[in-house]
Formats: sequence, structure tokens, C-alpha cells
Amino acid sequence: MTESTRHPAGPNTGEPLGVAVVGYSFMGKAHSNAWRNVGAFYPDVPGVDRRVLVGRDPDGVAAAARQFGWAESATDWRSVLDRDAVQLVDICAPGHLHAEIAIAALAAGKHVLVEKPLANDVAQAEQMERAAAEARERGVHSMVGFNYRRVPALALARRLVAEGRIGTVRQARVSYLQDWLTDDDAPMTWRLRQETAGSGAIGDLASHAVDQLGFLLGQEVTSVSGTLRTFVGERPGEKGPEQVTVEDAAWATLHTSGGAVASLEVSRVAAGRKNALQIELYGSQGSLAFDLESLNTLRVYDTADRSGTSITAGPAAVLTTEAEHPYVEAWWPPGHVLGWDHTFTNQAADLLAAIGSDTAPVPGFSDGLAVQRVLAGIQESAATGGAEVKIQHSPPSA
Amino acid sequence: MTESTRHPAGPNTGEPLGVAVVGYSFMGKAHSNAWRNVGAFYPDVPGVDRRVLVGRDPDGVAAAARQFGWAESATDWRSVLDRDAVQLVDICAPGHLHAEIAIAALAAGKHVLVEKPLANDVAQAEQMERAAAEARERGVHSMVGFNYRRVPALALARRLVAEGRIGTVRQARVSYLQDWLTDDDAPMTWRLRQETAGSGAIGDLASHAVDQLGFLLGQEVTSVSGTLRTFVGERPGEKGPEQVTVEDAAWATLHTSGGAVASLEVSRVAAGRKNALQIELYGSQGSLAFDLESLNTLRVYDTADRSGTSITAGPAAVLTTEAEHPYVEAWWPPGHVLGWDHTFTNQAADLLAAIGSDTAPVPGFSDGLAVQRVLAGIQESAATGGAEVKIQHSPPSA
Amino acid sequence: MTESTRHPAGPNTGEPLGVAVVGYSFMGKAHSNAWRNVGAFYPDVPGVDRRVLVGRDPDGVAAAARQFGWAESATDWRSVLDRDAVQLVDICAPGHLHAEIAIAALAAGKHVLVEKPLANDVAQAEQMERAAAEARERGVHSMVGFNYRRVPALALARRLVAEGRIGTVRQARVSYLQDWLTDDDAPMTWRLRQETAGSGAIGDLASHAVDQLGFLLGQEVTSVSGTLRTFVGERPGEKGPEQVTVEDAAWATLHTSGGAVASLEVSRVAAGRKNALQIELYGSQGSLAFDLESLNTLRVYDTADRSGTSITAGPAAVLTTEAEHPYVEAWWPPGHVLGWDHTFTNQAADLLAAIGSDTAPVPGFSDGLAVQRVLAGIQESAATGGAEVKIQHSPPSA
Amino acid sequence: MTESTRHPAGPNTGEPLGVAVVGYSFMGKAHSNAWRNVGAFYPDVPGVDRRVLVGRDPDGVAAAARQFGWAESATDWRSVLDRDAVQLVDICAPGHLHAEIAIAALAAGKHVLVEKPLANDVAQAEQMERAAAEARERGVHSMVGFNYRRVPALALARRLVAEGRIGTVRQARVSYLQDWLTDDDAPMTWRLRQETAGSGAIGDLASHAVDQLGFLLGQEVTSVSGTLRTFVGERPGEKGPEQVTVEDAAWATLHTSGGAVASLEVSRVAAGRKNALQIELYGSQGSLAFDLESLNTLRVYDTADRSGTSITAGPAAVLTTEAEHPYVEAWWPPGHVLGWDHTFTNQAADLLAAIGSDTAPVPGFSDGLAVQRVLAGIQESAATGGAEVKIQHSPPSA
Repeated sequence: MTESTRHPAGPNTGEPLGVAVVGYSFMGKAHSNAWRNVGAFYPDVPGVDRRVLVGRDPDGVAAAARQFGWAESATDWRSVLDRDAVQLVDICAPGHLHAEIAIAALAAGKHVLVEKPLANDVAQAEQMERAAAEARERGVHSMVGFNYRRVPALALARRLVAEGRIGTVRQARVSYLQDWLTDDDAPMTWRLRQETAGSGAIGDLASHAVDQLGFLLGQEVTSVSGTLRTFVGERPGEKGPEQVTVEDAAWATLHTSGGAVASLEVSRVAAGRKNALQIELYGSQGSLAFDLESLNTLRVYDTADRSGTSITAGPAAVLTTEAEHPYVEAWWPPGHVLGWDHTFTNQAADLLAAIGSDTAPVPGFSDGLAVQRVLAGIQESAATGGAEVKIQHSPPSA
Repeated sequence: MTESTRHPAGPNTGEPLGVAVVGYSFMGKAHSNAWRNVGAFYPDVPGVDRRVLVGRDPDGVAAAARQFGWAESATDWRSVLDRDAVQLVDICAPGHLHAEIAIAALAAGKHVLVEKPLANDVAQAEQMERAAAEARERGVHSMVGFNYRRVPALALARRLVAEGRIGTVRQARVSYLQDWLTDDDAPMTWRLRQETAGSGAIGDLASHAVDQLGFLLGQEVTSVSGTLRTFVGERPGEKGPEQVTVEDAAWATLHTSGGAVASLEVSRVAAGRKNALQIELYGSQGSLAFDLESLNTLRVYDTADRSGTSITAGPAAVLTTEAEHPYVEAWWPPGHVLGWDHTFTNQAADLLAAIGSDTAPVPGFSDGLAVQRVLAGIQESAATGGAEVKIQHSPPSA
Repeated sequence: MTESTRHPAGPNTGEPLGVAVVGYSFMGKAHSNAWRNVGAFYPDVPGVDRRVLVGRDPDGVAAAARQFGWAESATDWRSVLDRDAVQLVDICAPGHLHAEIAIAALAAGKHVLVEKPLANDVAQAEQMERAAAEARERGVHSMVGFNYRRVPALALARRLVAEGRIGTVRQARVSYLQDWLTDDDAPMTWRLRQETAGSGAIGDLASHAVDQLGFLLGQEVTSVSGTLRTFVGERPGEKGPEQVTVEDAAWATLHTSGGAVASLEVSRVAAGRKNALQIELYGSQGSLAFDLESLNTLRVYDTADRSGTSITAGPAAVLTTEAEHPYVEAWWPPGHVLGWDHTFTNQAADLLAAIGSDTAPVPGFSDGLAVQRVLAGIQESAATGGAEVKIQHSPPSA
Repeated sequence: MTESTRHPAGPNTGEPLGVAVVGYSFMGKAHSNAWRNVGAFYPDVPGVDRRVLVGRDPDGVAAAARQFGWAESATDWRSVLDRDAVQLVDICAPGHLHAEIAIAALAAGKHVLVEKPLANDVAQAEQMERAAAEARERGVHSMVGFNYRRVPALALARRLVAEGRIGTVRQARVSYLQDWLTDDDAPMTWRLRQETAGSGAIGDLASHAVDQLGFLLGQEVTSVSGTLRTFVGERPGEKGPEQVTVEDAAWATLHTSGGAVASLEVSRVAAGRKNALQIELYGSQGSLAFDLESLNTLRVYDTADRSGTSITAGPAAVLTTEAEHPYVEAWWPPGHVLGWDHTFTNQAADLLAAIGSDTAPVPGFSDGLAVQRVLAGIQESAATGGAEVKIQHSPPSA
């Protein structure tokens, strides 16, 4: 590590934090990008030392480490936990490995970032939440990577809701639509088998959507009713047709602790939608709308600040690139839009700031667990024809 | 009636049809507009003689008749059924009167158009459907006024689905959002009492949405699960607060005979949405999207006609104002957009053409009944916590 | 004329005005539609008696008269001027006939509506303006049919500008783009010959654009520089290729009396644009944007009424369908959008109201003349390589 | 430089290129970001050694170097030219310094990247172009930083035009609108004085717009007519009001070597527009449209690939995030949008690839000079009331 990438860290810390990332494919690349850039945009948070990238294939992970800018690579995540130079473990491995790695890392005194969803089932998530609660007592922090909380437009939305700008939220419409499985001939992958992926659109897409509900409304989901559907039951495998055992799409109606009703729809077969996380919130005094495919814009409709003149009321397309918008001051002048990957850099900054000031990062594992319980509730309801299922919220760590 | 408004009618008929409209407020005005204009744009359908406008207040209906261009006014709809000069009765009265008037008119040998929804409950709708089936034997025709079937963009959507342009439809997203009840202080009206209105957003908005599903997909709804919610339970009446006894909003998941799943959401408290009937259809080879607030546009995404070049694939904003688009040849050159009320004129033309050629108008009372059964299914499911309810489709007229 | 279409007229008049329309193709159809409907939506303006439709082909005009709802047809416009039953002559004939008919009609004491542009050249327009000024002395009124002044969104824009909501207007961007001549093989027509059409995109499209500038800003154009271009110089005629002698497109930069600069671009070869009159106004405190292909929406950006919170500043998409919006009270409830043809009905209402109250209709022939002078200035500038040309505004009637 | 940031470079090179950036404010930050990330996304181009960041203030540049990840900082750009470890000089200093630094760097055998515009006037640009041509003989390369050529949507647009997908381009509409000077009280800066900034909206914004014309059409501008305007002539300085000596906005009509006509409009007082580089191209068989505020989308309208069915013709909103789209394979899966700063990373990759393969980078200084001549032509035309000015294109290096 040369001077060139060692940041002087923020006011709270002297030495940079040594980071290890586990996983080097899509998410590993995105998280590496965040660690590489966070110091350049957030000079006041603790600096990072990009220590080691972990993966199973020695050649592959070594090449990735060089490409993404890591000091070293390693093939065994356990060995990394023994290193003093590593203070933060960032888990981008497949979901069924999250619990084991995270619990071990926390036990080893490492701060932990886990890519969403927190786990593949509620039981694992509960164990992780307990481990995180215990670690917190020892000053060891943890976070789950719901990166869309760091989209400036969504962070602004949360702020506007919290400030009451749209009054009491009554209806939320959340959908997350993709289309990469539209074609019947899209090939079989591990993502389409329940034993490896846990679930389909539920874990992958609905987890983000449910987390946004909690984030934006500041409320808990109290009950759900849901439906799952696999439209293409068989897909070409390497040796012929194979059974798809996870859902292509899911629908749910959710009730929240604050009296709102939310509709949820997620799909991987929505032709023409590439990465459309769409959120609409309707309150007693206004509404907000967002689409991840156009992530720099928040549509704001409110009646409060319009000088009483309804004649020009209409949803305003707010380009969230002003210095006063969340996260934007770190970046570029007005109108110079951010992309998808910047959300991970913002996330890294938030995590580092929390560690630097010894405060609990948000969203923590308890937030990840809350999402998991809602997802499980949707699955349970779907299994029984859509009947309402209550969601339990008493924390296992209590 | 002078030459100036008597059209020479189409090839099928000599004398113009005498029309009576029952009701002269919002819908009566819209239907009057259609009867006044249909001949000017559709010279080949039977002509109409705007004979009589019916309403309870003698002065009010007389003034409306003069304003809207009717030869006469009357206060008793029964008396109108005795007139030989009236061959078509168009019912724009409140929903609880539909059955009685329609059945009497059919019995009197008058063709009947009933504004949507067909009735306030399934029992009435079944009676009406039976009456219509019997009348049909006598050459007397009937139609229910789901006018949005006559939006060129939606008629185009139906045609594209039928032609297989988007493959097999898997997911439909239908919402109808308005905001006139957003404010807690919006006053109490008869529309917010169950005894007069039958239901709230369900009958008013979901009826259109459900009809579109049947229209666009050409399929029946086989089961539903639903949720209803009244957000503002009490509103200012003339003598103090009154209880609101109908729903502000409703949600449902619907399964169709062709294997599609549809989500439905309707609301009168969706701040910033004025008349947003939004429809998205996702098929195995493409998708379609529509918003009634921008009703001249259909968004079309398909992979079939793109010469194999995915590099320019994207939803196309089709301005449905070309002569080849449904209904448009009757109107204006490309780019000269239509408005909401033109759908009623198109509807009138379709009804007259059907009568002129002695073929059953579409949608008939059986279609209206099918919608009613789905609405009732949503209410039943909602009453039992969202459990799935099967929809019965064997026609009562059988 | 029966009771059914004779309106009781507004407070100012007893008998309905007898109307004659000259021309029965596209514009004749649109104007007929307006006269047929104006009373139904504007009961308080003088009523109309749709007396006679005039055209050259006896059979064609007779059929059109029946279809569009006129009491009679005629083939000689001069004969119509002799009739006492006609008090208003609406000229939808080709542009080179405007001056002769209008001047004769005014001389005969008939109120006159002339479809835009007022004339094919400045000299004719000046004669017409003088005739109109003289007639006005005798209580005879005249108007030029710039119907887009009656789009609610544009009337709202004018009001917002006049009220200072966007401060001082500095820049205006006005374009009017169509694509019906995009194809090289689009056939030759009289519209593409200078001797019959006067000009191409200038007279047809730029006239609307220039009129909007005057309307919205309340300012005069003081100088222009311009460019014309014919991209397809030859088109297939009936007997082989023929020379196109009018421009396909035009560009201009205009300076106004209030210090604003406007850019203008009009085209008939803008592939994919059907009827895109697009207007953007940038002021010292906000901006407005409009597109005729989506004519119910005005985009409003202002800083004044935003409670000082720039954090939610953004262009608001105002759906101009509220009762407080211009013209809308006559029509439908919020969200029930208007179409292109409703602008003519609004125009007819404005004209009738002006006649009924004996006040000068707006825009008058002097406004039409002002537009004509700007168009001539663009042509003059284009002929000399784009050099600035001053626009003369002293009225010829003075 | 450790292993962690030294990339194995592409097939063409062994050692990484040492890079120096001159300037560390807005552009210096953006370029630093590009050099920090290029290797992580483009492993096959030559690697870079982020050697030295240059600025006048020793403390400021040292802090920036640490923050942005440079090995060292320096205050004298001349000293950097002596270093063997530096092979590429990237000039982000103010425009009036471009020529001196670039010419010296090229003379010292360094590859050069110059931020746009190439220079403040044509004379400087010509000198630079000659220096670049001479250096090229010695294998020393140079490029001008028109980074918007690296927006995937615009690179796709260029490809579609080149492939003839929209036929012959006839009309181009290019505008670049910002609003940071809308407020009369926005303070005086060096950017608003001619002696320091050279020009206002012309050099800053029109340079991008004019470069895009050349890039997208593959044609030269042959003549222009233009207008300049300063709306706010005086702004608050530190010691009272000061004179603004550059234009707030500019308009031009341009003619190209291929027979197209382009309109150009740039402004810094367009309230509500933050960074709106908007481009529309209309060809004989289709059209394209782009807006930098929504930079992942290209709107494509063509008639060629639509299987002859005009019924679904409409501008398609192509989300340019597919692997087949230009530059995208280096980044993320479909629907994961890029931001403004990614264009600089793409630019760095293109430059490195050109250097690695010893081919001339594009756009070269001759392209920058061509833009400069057009800008000068606009200024000259504006000074003479908008008369047409021919643009000279014979290269000074010939």
C-alpha cells in the first residue's frame, strides 16, 4: 500500500481499516469499486487499506485482485479472519454462506458488511442477528448491504416522509421488475434451484423492495398476504431440460404498523424492464415516485409548499444532483448524474463513518432479519392460497 | 328535428334511431355529447334522433335538454318506454336504478345501453343478463358502457395481444388511481355510503380495470384474493361528521383462465393522480403499457419485429393517431390527439353499427355480469382476510 | 332549426347567430365540430344557428353538410353574404382566398372568423387588417383562428407569464415538427407549390409558433434572422417528377420588444414527430414547457412558490384539467383529458362571447398581420444569407 | 506503486504508463477518478501509474493528491515534463494555459490529453494542432477531452447514423442548457470575464455541442450564422457590481458538408435545466434523441426494422445498458445505469488503447481545432448581425 491510496482518514481514526472482500464476481466487483473510491469522495471518514480479495479459484481471484486493486488475494475466508491487518470483512459470497462467514468474522472481532439479502432463511438470519447484537457489545459493528438506501433520490424521499412533507403515508406501491428470464429458452442456472438460491424473485428482488418500505416509512410490516408463480417450469440445462424450483414472480399485499397498505410485485419475466425498482408513496398531503432505471430523479407532489395555488400543482421531477441532496456534496456539480455503482461507494462511506464514530451502522442485521421475516411471511401466505399471515417482530437477540 | 342533424344513416337502415338518455349530470352530459357527434364522424352507421332527455327535476332536465341538444325532456323514464319514437334507451342514472330501468326497457322492446358498472350487485346483474338474453331472441340489443374499450390505444393493445405480438401474457398490472378523496376534509356525499353507492373504489374504478383485463387478454378471471381499506372513516356532513361506509382503495391478485396473474390496485386517495388508469401487460415476447392521463399513447415493447437487432430494443411510445389505428380514421390527421370524451362517441358508433347489422353489441350484459362477479369475489376475499375466492362463470341465462 | 339545437343564448343576446362555414375538408370539419358543440359546453355565450356550409363541389358539400349537421349547403360564398340569416362567416378556404372572402364578408356586415394564417402575404394581410378596422367601427367583428391560444395549458402559460410567475422571460424555444414529408416518395400536392400554398412550413407551422410567442410573452418581434431549406426538391407528380417550390423546414432567431431572444424551428420532415408544437420559456425566476402531442400538460418550474426549499425544486407536470384551469370548467372533471378538436370549440366560445358583448375578439386581424410580417421577415432574411431583418409594426389601419 | 494498483496492462505493453494530471478542482477530480478506475474495468488496455497531481497551491494539491490517490503532488507543471516516470500529461488547467502546457509536453515526448475546449481561440488551437501533428510523427499521441463521445447512448447514436439506420441526416437540433446564472444575484467569477474565460456559454457548452455534431454526423460544419446575448450585464463582485463580459447564451444555425442543417442553442440561464445537453437528429428514415440529464437512454425512431408494420411505430426508449452497447461490457449487467463520471473512465480507456496500439487517438487536436473554428465563426457572425460565415477547414499542419 503506497501513499497514493492510503487516505489520511477522517477525524476519528489514525490508521486505515484493512478490508477483505469475500467474493469477486458481480457483487465483489461492485464492492471493490466502492472500497477503491470511497476515500476520494469522502475524505472525512476513516481510510481503507484494500488488503485482500477472497475467492475459491486461486487464479481467478488473483487476477481479479490485480484488476480491482487489492493488495492480495486468498482462497480461504477463514484464514483471513486470523489476520490483524484485516478489520472489516465484506461478504459478497452466495447467500447460503452468509451466516457462517458473518458469525465467524464477528466472533473474530471483525466488522462485517453482508450483501443482501441477509440470509436464505429466517433461522439463519436470527442467528446472525444474535451474533451481531453480541458483537456490538464489544464495539464490533455490522451492516447489511441494502445499497438502494444510498440512492440520493431515495434518501431524499425518506427525509421528506420523515419531515411530514406528504403527510401520513397511506398507500405504497413497490415493484421490482426485470426481464432476464422472459425467454423460455433462457438457460438453467444455480439461481433457479431452491437448494442453492433459497428462493427466486423473492430473495433477490423483493428483499430490496421490502427493505425500502421499512426505510422510507419508518414502519414495520405487520401482516402480509402473497402469491408466487413460476411461469417457465423447465429450462434447458446442460444435459437436457431441468426443473425450475424457484418463483419467477411474486405479489403481496402488506400492512404496516402505521396503518399503511403496500402492494408489492416482483418479476424476472417483465419484458422490457431491466432493473425497474419502482416506488410510489401516497400520503395524506402528497406523493413521491421513483424508478431505479432513472435513479437521479424523484417525483414529488405535495400541496403544502405551493403557496396555496393549486393551479400549478403537479408531480415535480426533482433531479437530485444539488449539493443539498443526500450524498451529492461528495460528488459533482448540479446536473452531473450519478450511476448505479455510486450507491455502493455511499454505502461504504456510511459504514466507515459509523465505525469511525463507534455508532451502530444502519441497516443492521436486525433490519435484515425483519426483511427476512416478511419474505417468509409472503411464502407462507402463498402456500396457503393468499391468506393473511402475521409478521412477528420481537427480536431474537432480546 | 331538422335535416341538419338527421343523418342519412348507414347502409343498414332508413330512419334514424330515436334515443332517450336517462340522467343528465356528468355521464348524461358525456353521453349526450356522443349522440350529438356520432353521425358527424361515423356517417355509415345508423343515424340518431336525439329525442328525449330524462331527469327527475323538471326545470333542470329541461335546461339540460336545451343545452345538450335534445328535442325534449321528461321526468318519468317509464313514460319514455311507451313512445314509438324512442328505440334506444341509454341509462346514465345511478347504479341502483340500472336493473329496473334496463329490464323494463328491454321488455318494452328498446335497445339498451347501460353505463358501467352494470349493477350494484351480482343478483341484479344476473337478472339483467337474463333479460338481455331473452331480448336478444327478439332482436333487441344491449350493451354495457365500458367506454375505455374505445380508447384507440387500448383497442390497439387488444389487437396486438390477440395477434400474439407480445406472446403469451403472463403478468398484468392494472391500477386506477384518483385523488379526489385525499383531503380528510373532503365532504361526505352519497357516493361514500354503501346503501346508495353499493361500493366505493371497487364499483367505480375496479370495474373498469377488471373489464380491461377481460377485454385485453380475452380471458376470464378464475380466482381472486383481495383487500379493501377506508383510510378516512369519517367525513364532514351537513350536520356534522358522518361515517364513510365504502372503501377508499382496494387491492387484488387475480388469476385468469389463460394462466396469467394480474395485480389490481384502485384508489381515490392517491395524491397527484387524477384519472390514472394504468395498464401494463407482460408477455413471453414483449410488453405493453398505457396510462389514461396520456391516452393517445401506447408503449409497445416487442422482440419479434425488430429484425433481430436487440441493440435498439426499447419500449416505443406509439402515438395512436394514425389512420390505421382503431377508430382514428373517423377523426383527424396524425398527431391531432383525441380526448377522453371521444371514447363515448366511438362507443355510440359501435353500438349503432351493431344494431344496424343486428349483431350482438360488445361488451354485453354478460360481460358486465362477469365483471360484477369478480368485484364481488374481491369483496368476499377481503372480508375473510385475503383468502383466494373462486369465480363462478356459468351464465345465469343458460 | 329546432329547439334541440337552438340555445337560449347568453345574457347578451336573444336570437342565435346564423353561421356559414366556407370549406368542408379538414378545417371545415374541425370548425363544424366546434359550432355543433359550443352551445352544449358554453351555455352562456350567444347561441348559433348552423345555417350553411359552402364548398365548390355541389354533391360533396351537400353530403358534408348533412354529415356535419348544417341546415343547408351552398356552392357560392358570395350568395351567402346576401342572406340575412347569416351573421357570421367562418373562412376555412385555402389561404389565397382569405382576403377576398373576408373583405367582402366584412363589407356585407358579417362577423368573420378566418382560419390561420391570415393570408398568404403581407399585402393581403394589410388589406384585411384595414377592412377589419373599418368594420369594427360599424360593430362588425373579426378574428383569426390561432386555435392553440385555446389550449388550456397554453392559456395557463400565458396567465403565469403575465402574473410574473417565471419572472422576465429571456429565452423562448419554439419548434413545430411534423413528419409527413419525410419520405422522398411522398407525392406532390398543391401544398408544395408556391403559387398555391404561398409557402411551406413557414405559413403552415411557423405561423402558429410566431403567434404563440406574441400570445405568451405579450411582446412584439422586433427583428429576425432566418434560414429556409427544401430537402426533397422533387417529388412524384401525376405525370412524373415535379419541382417542390416551398420549404420543408425553417429556422429563425427572433428578438422581441421585451428583450427576449427566441429560437424557432419548423419542419415537415422530422421523422417520428407527428404534430409537435413544442414551447419552452425561460425566465429570470422559472420556466415553462409544453408539447402539443401531450396537450393537457404544462411543465412549470418556478422558484417563487416553493417555500424557499430548493431541495424539491423540479419541473412540475401540471395536468391542466382542474376547474380553475382556463376553459376547463366547461368540460369534464379533473383528469378527464381534452383533445385537439376541443380547442376549436373553445375558440368558437370566445368569439361568440366577444360578439355578444360587442368587444373586439382576440386575436384580431392585426395580430394575424403581425405574424405575417414576421414570417415575411424570416423569408427576407433567409434570402440574404441570414442577416438580421427589422420587423415593422406600425399598423396600416392607422 | 504496489501490485494492488499496477495492472498487468493489455497485450500491447509491459510497464504501466506514468500519468500526471495538471489541475485538481472539478475536472482534476473527474480525471483522477478516471485514472483510478480505468484498469479495474478495462483490464486489456495499458495500465497506469498515477504518478503526480499538479497544482499551484502546495497544500491544496498535496491534500488532493492524497484524497484522489496520486503518488505525489507538484506545483510546477514544467518540472513534471522532466520526469521519465511520466509518460502522459493530462491537462485540466484553465483554457488559457492549454496551449503552452500541451505544446511543451508534446515537445518533451509526453502523450497529452487536453480537457475541452482545446484552447481559448483559433490561433492557439492551430499551434497546438501543428505541435500534435509533429509529435505524432515521433509516436507521441494527443487527444482532446470531449468526454460525451464516450456516453454509451451517444456512441450508439453515432454507430446507428454510420450504419444508415436513420437514412441521410437532414436536421440536427442540439442544445445545451444550464441554469446556474439564472439568478441576477449569482456572483461574479473569473468565468464571466472575457480575459480569463475567453468566452461564456460558447466555449463551455457550445464546444461540446459542436463536437457532437461532427462526431454523430461524421461531417464538417461549412457555414454558420449566430447570435450571442448577455442577459445579466452586471453581477455582484467582491467590491461592488462588476461588468459581465461573456455571453450567457448563444444561438446558431449551422450548415454541414453533407447537406444537413443544425440548430444550436446554449444557455446558462435556462431555469430548471441543470446539465441538459439535448440532441435530436432527423434523417430520411428515422430519428434519434438524447438528453444528458438522462444519459443512459437513447430514443430511436426508425422505419427500417419494423417489419413493415407502421401501426407500432414510435420512438423507442432504448436503455443503453446491454452488453452489446458501446462501453457497457466493461461495466454492469443490464439495467444498472452509468453516471456522468463513467464517461471519463471510458475516455481514459480509449486513450490508453490508442497509445497501446500506437494509433491516433480520437478526437485529436485537429478535431478540437475544427470545433474552435466553428465557435469563432459563431462569434464573428454574431458581431455582424447574424450574417452567414463560411468555416475554413484546411488544416494548419498541412
